[in-house]
Order: sequence, then structure tokens, then C-alpha cells
Amino acid sequence: MLIVGERINTSRKAVNEAVGNRDVAYIQADVKAQVEAGADIIDVNAGSRSASELDDLRWLIDVIEEAVPARLSLDSSSPEVLAAVVNKVRDVPMLNSTTAEKARFEKMAPVIKERECDVVALCIGERGIPKTADQVLENATKLVHDLEAIGVKRERIHLDPLVQAVSVDSKAALIFLDAIERINRELPGVKTVCGLSNVSFSLPKRPLINRTFLTLAMKAGLQGALIDPLDKKLMATLRATVVLIGQDPFCRNYLKAFRAGKLED
Amino acid sequence: MLIVGERINTSRKAVNEAVGNRDVAYIQADVKAQVEAGADIIDVNAGSRSASELDDLRWLIDVIEEAVPARLSLDSSSPEVLAAVVNKVRDVPMLNSTTAEKARFEKMAPVIKERECDVVALCIGERGIPKTADQVLENATKLVHDLEAIGVKRERIHLDPLVQAVSVDSKAALIFLDAIERINRELPGVKTVCGLSNVSFSLPKRPLINRTFLTLAMKAGLQGALIDPLDKKLMATLRATVVLIGQDPFCRNYLKAFRAGKLED
Repeated sequence: MLIVGERINTSRKAVNEAVGNRDVAYIQADVKAQVEAGADIIDVNAGSRSASELDDLRWLIDVIEEAVPARLSLDSSSPEVLAAVVNKVRDVPMLNSTTAEKARFEKMAPVIKERECDVVALCIGERGIPKTADQVLENATKLVHDLEAIGVKRERIHLDPLVQAVSVDSKAALIFLDAIERINRELPGVKTVCGLSNVSFSLPKRPLINRTFLTLAMKAGLQGALIDPLDKKLMATLRATVVLIGQDPFCRNYLKAFRAGKLED
Repeated sequence: MLIVGERINTSRKAVNEAVGNRDVAYIQADVKAQVEAGADIIDVNAGSRSASELDDLRWLIDVIEEAVPARLSLDSSSPEVLAAVVNKVRDVPMLNSTTAEKARFEKMAPVIKERECDVVALCIGERGIPKTADQVLENATKLVHDLEAIGVKRERIHLDPLVQAVSVDSKAALIFLDAIERINRELPGVKTVCGLSNVSFSLPKRPLINRTFLTLAMKAGLQGALIDPLDKKLMATLRATVVLIGQDPFCRNYLKAFRAGKLED
């Protein structure tokens, strides 16, 4: 399970302040904690600070790379911003994100071609966010075709089917789970990734819904998630799920996490 | 989701003492709490008190039926004990349990024929506990055939595929989930039920594994579980799962549980 740590996002108040104050200690302590808790990749998003986004991202990249050996996910809605930092990062970057929309894809293609990188590809097409698993698959198939055409290897493609809120559509989680299963079957070799929090939009006790959804998504074949690795209950649920879906031989990682005091009940 | 409350079992120390002391108040408070927490059926098991099991069960039935309107699951490994109490209970009893073993089934058949009842049928055959989903299905098919032959309606049959410990076989949960899906597909109309705790045998933080397993089992199609409804985290996970698998329109039950303070995060 690929864990993309989501905490360095300026939409979070404390991070926004730390970035504004150029608080190196805060950012470095946070990313060290994320890696210690299990993050494989650190997502970096300064999109809420549109006036200074590029400067902020450059600063964040330097500060984070100084603190941890983790790979970075460069997360911006602006292809121009991503183009300006894609060659700055040390290790293979994850680019978050492109979509199947023609205009967006055409702007992202040259950025993606700059160097070998992992690509988060949101299954959004010209008609917007998909409402059915069929629409997800249609966008997913187009994305894989178009990304392979510009030289991206299949195993570097991380499709996000985009989960909708169960409070709006009671079948939203089921549609997502079906889409994950179909992507794994119909587009073998491609990876999947997602954020969790949309699913619980407008409901109380969102972390409970989110971690329960993560269990279901992992069973359906989800290979990566954009999550807060410092959420101890979420991480405990993730580790228990890895055991139950047969991906933790002899429960080794589960027992290791338990002995390290990392399994919150 | 059919919730069978498992707490009235004399293998639990406090219950054993209460039964030994004929402590009406203790038993009645416990079953009231189980029903208040969501139990549909109260399981009653005095099997650990072999010398007095029948007397104890008779006493428990009277005491519980006086306290709550819930249905009872009569739980004993002894067909003779079950025969002596099957006509004593007020509402349609659940008989827990028979197996596909010839000797066991032949002893249980006359008890089952005494009156209309729900039957918990463990998918154990002559070769013991099944090791594969194929073996579960073989025993399940035989059980459904044999139970229908003695007049049990399909919807009164609750098959338990029997989950094994993931610490012993890392595929144990997956085999169980596959069996549940196949039972629903190949034996339509039959119900499924299970206890959870075997799956986490010998692991630390068993409640974490158990409730994560419940989520997966419900998605696979499990329709009932023998659980402790006073386990607040388990019940919160169950309610979140019902939302995610599209069985709680408008999240009505989830929101109701939240407002009642029943959703432990």
C-alpha cells in the first residue's frame, strides 16, 4: 500500500502559517513525523496561496528534502507551477495531477515529459466528474492510452476514480469500489490511488467513515491513498486490513507496529 | 444486518457467576442493554456449565423473556438440551447449531422439526472444518438440501462458513469472504451469519481486526453476525459500513445513531 502523506497542504491553517512565516522547524518536524508513521511519499500543496504558490512550493521542496529522504508528490492545479518545479526535486516526483480533459491534458503533457515521474490521473473527462463506473472506466482508458502515448510507463500511472459523497448518493462508495475492481481487471498493470475524505462529506464522525471506506477500497484493490499518516486510528485500520487481505505474511508488519506502540485500538 | 447479541454466555466469568447466583437483575440489565444497543436476537449459551446446562438455560429463558421482547438464539452443542427448550421460548427461536456431519444432523433434525425456527448451520462436514471456499460450498449445499428436505424454509437457514485465524493462514479471511460471495450467488435466498473472533486468534488488538473483518464480510454479503452489541467501536464500524454499502438510505440510521451519542469515533 502506497501511503501519500497529505499533511503539507496550505489549506490547513497551521501549515499555511508555517509557510507564511518560513517556519523550517515546523515543516521539517511534520514531514519527519509523517515518514516515521509510514508515509512513502510526501504530498506538497500550496495551492491555497495563489499569489505566492510557486515561491512557497520551491521553499517547501528545499526544506522537506533537507529533512527526509522521502519522495515528493507535487500537487497543484496549475501546470505552469508544476512545470517550474518538476526538475527541482531530487528523486522521481509524483505529479498530482492531470485529468482526461483535453485542455488540461495538453497543458500537463509537456510537464510529464520533462522527466520520468509518477502521474496521478483523475478520471475526470469532458463531461466532468463521472457518475457511474462505466464513465470512470471510459476516462481511465483514455488516460492510460494518452499517457502511454507520451511515454509514461503503465506502472507509473496512478488512476483516481474520484469517490463522491455517500450523503448525496448512497451508491457512491459502491460505484467507486466497482471502478477500482474494473480498472485492475481491464487495465492490468496500472495503479490506483485516491483521497478518502470526499466520501464522508457533510456527515458527522468523518474519520470513522473514511477509515471504514479505506478498508473496503483496499479489498477492492486500491494500491495507494492520500491520507494523514498521523491519524492513528486510520493507520491501525490500514494495518489490520493489510493482514485480512492476505498482504502481510505471518502478520509481521502488524506485530511490528503493535510492538512499536503504533496500533491504536 | 441481523445482530445476534453474544453476551449471555457462561464462558464469560461475570455471566457464569450471575447464572450460578440466579442473579435476575444482572441478566436482565445485560439483555436490556444489548437490545438498546441494537441486538435483534439474544444468544443464550450455558454450555460451559455442563452439569446444570439445561436448568440454567430454562432459568435464563424465563428471566430474559421477562425483560425484553427480543427473540432468542438457543445455543448448545447438545441436541438433547436444545430439544428440551425449543418449545419453551415465546417467539420463533434460532437454533444454534447444526452441521453437515451426518451424526450431528440426524440428532438435530427432530429438534428442528419441532416448530418453525431459524437454524444456524455451520459449514462443517465429515472431514472437519473446511480449508477452502470449495469445501465450504460443498458443506453449505448439503446443509441447504438436507434442511429443506426436513421442511426448513430457505430464508430460515443461516449458514456460517466458519472463519479461520489469519495468524495461521494469511488467506483465511479471503477464503471466508469468497465463500460468502459464492453462497449468495449459488444458494440464493439462504442467509449467512458468523462469529468474528476466530479470525483474530493469537493476535494483539483483536477488536481492531474483528471490526475491520466485519466491514469486509458485510461488503461480501454477510447478513448476520454474532457480536457484542455493547462494543461501541464495533457498532460504530458496523453503522458506517451499512452506509458505505448502500444499505442506509439518506444515512438515516447513521445520523440517528450519531444523535443518540452511539457513534464512538
